[in-house]
Amino acid sequence: MKVVVIGLGLIGGSFAKDVRELHPGARLIGVDHSEAHIKEALALGIIDDTGDLSSLGDADVVFVAIPVNALLGELPKLLDRVGDQTVVMDAGSTKRLICEAVQGHPNRRNFLACHPIAGTEFSGPSAALSGLYREKTMIICEVEKTAFKLQERALALIQGMGMRIRYMNPQAHDRHIAYVSHLSHISSFMLGKTVIDKERNERDIFDMAGSGFESTVRLAKSSPDMWAPIFEQNRDNVVETLDEYIQNLIGFKQMIADGDFEKVHEEMSNTNKIKQILKGIPLTKK
Amino acid sequence: MKVVVIGLGLIGGSFAKDVRELHPGARLIGVDHSEAHIKEALALGIIDDTGDLSSLGDADVVFVAIPVNALLGELPKLLDRVGDQTVVMDAGSTKRLICEAVQGHPNRRNFLACHPIAGTEFSGPSAALSGLYREKTMIICEVEKTAFKLQERALALIQGMGMRIRYMNPQAHDRHIAYVSHLSHISSFMLGKTVIDKERNERDIFDMAGSGFESTVRLAKSSPDMWAPIFEQNRDNVVETLDEYIQNLIGFKQMIADGDFEKVHEEMSNTNKIKQILKGIPLTKK
Repeated sequence: MKVVVIGLGLIGGSFAKDVRELHPGARLIGVDHSEAHIKEALALGIIDDTGDLSSLGDADVVFVAIPVNALLGELPKLLDRVGDQTVVMDAGSTKRLICEAVQGHPNRRNFLACHPIAGTEFSGPSAALSGLYREKTMIICEVEKTAFKLQERALALIQGMGMRIRYMNPQAHDRHIAYVSHLSHISSFMLGKTVIDKERNERDIFDMAGSGFESTVRLAKSSPDMWAPIFEQNRDNVVETLDEYIQNLIGFKQMIADGDFEKVHEEMSNTNKIKQILKGIPLTKK
Repeated sequence: MKVVVIGLGLIGGSFAKDVRELHPGARLIGVDHSEAHIKEALALGIIDDTGDLSSLGDADVVFVAIPVNALLGELPKLLDRVGDQTVVMDAGSTKRLICEAVQGHPNRRNFLACHPIAGTEFSGPSAALSGLYREKTMIICEVEKTAFKLQERALALIQGMGMRIRYMNPQAHDRHIAYVSHLSHISSFMLGKTVIDKERNERDIFDMAGSGFESTVRLAKSSPDMWAPIFEQNRDNVVETLDEYIQNLIGFKQMIADGDFEKVHEEMSNTNKIKQILKGIPLTKK
């Protein structure tokens, strides 16, 4: 089995590690625009060799884990070069524009639109983790547009990594993911900004902040190179979710300002049911 | 050593567990308005016996870990009943009103105003953890108002638990803590509310949410009984931090709506320095 991983960061690197475990004989080729990433991935044994677009013709699987803005431009070019038996999977956090970018491509049947709900706030080949995908969800869009045999090969790999699969249309994906992922990142970034702006003396933050603060601002460590393009591609949904979030904050602030602490209590009680919802979410081991 | 713990939840229970480890011969008396909590704490061996206000006269240490609204009313009554050699420590997340409530009390010298920056989103005696306070910060206010010998006894206990101590005035405490704790809780509660309101089908949240979402809404599991009174007692500071947070969110939303993704990228890059700040925050083991 020949597997080409394009983009050797946390997501691509972790995928390569799991492929290696599942298929010890697999040949893993890595492609990245960063020479440093390639060297690091080679040194860490994540890939066997480096390659370029000419590596795609006889590849069994191509996994593309690059920022979503790059994905829009690169995906059609990659599909131009694949062999008849190559399946290309992406890992983009948006799906509508990506599916549109390859709509009508002569090799559309070689592409499987994927979004693995997995990650940490770290990046680069050294952030890659074996088992990152275990018990996580893989969202697959427009599965019917992928050749059946190629679907089978990709699904065997995904299931081999221990993932659950959920099928969804790209529009529904982008709408829902704005709430459960994109909004979390923005709330975290803006929380970080608010505190940094106020507390110029970092020593004060350090001393008074506990694990609760750490938990809510963890995502503010995320890569802007990855996230700015995601917000761009999912602009309308993100703006809508942000509007609702801001309205809820304004409402809660007003209750506090008005001294209506019964209502404040009620709002929090109603939201406590997130406990039950969260019970089902597998956490990233860290 | 006789130690009375008033309020046998996560904070009080964890304190009792650490006292037991530091002073195996200590006699631990528990007080709680909930019979179920007392039974549970006895069954778990967290306390040796139950008691009431008459237990305070010969106590060496009294640790009061009850919601801050109850604290305002109870603290003066507790100080009425203490012996000359008793030190009373609280664990309230607000400090200004609490310090005002005992200002001028004849036994003010028996009180040490404390806020341990430690906790989890769980509550009750069964949530108590040995070592919860290790490497965490204890904020102490108005230390000069506590009798020197009683300070010494309390500090020995606090340091024995492995805590760092930071002295601060109550006003500064309430202002800073609004940013690094109270705001995190509100952002988390409102994030939970926004997603729950939108995603009536909880199955969808469950399937698409990853560890990032879990991390940002973890605090929305917190107890409204504890948190509504905190927001009430720190109303002005909380409203101010919320205003700043909301303004930052509105600004970020506008950048996205305007399509100014260079600015979006810049905002996130500037906030990435939270990485360095967070490096110093010890996490709760869970």
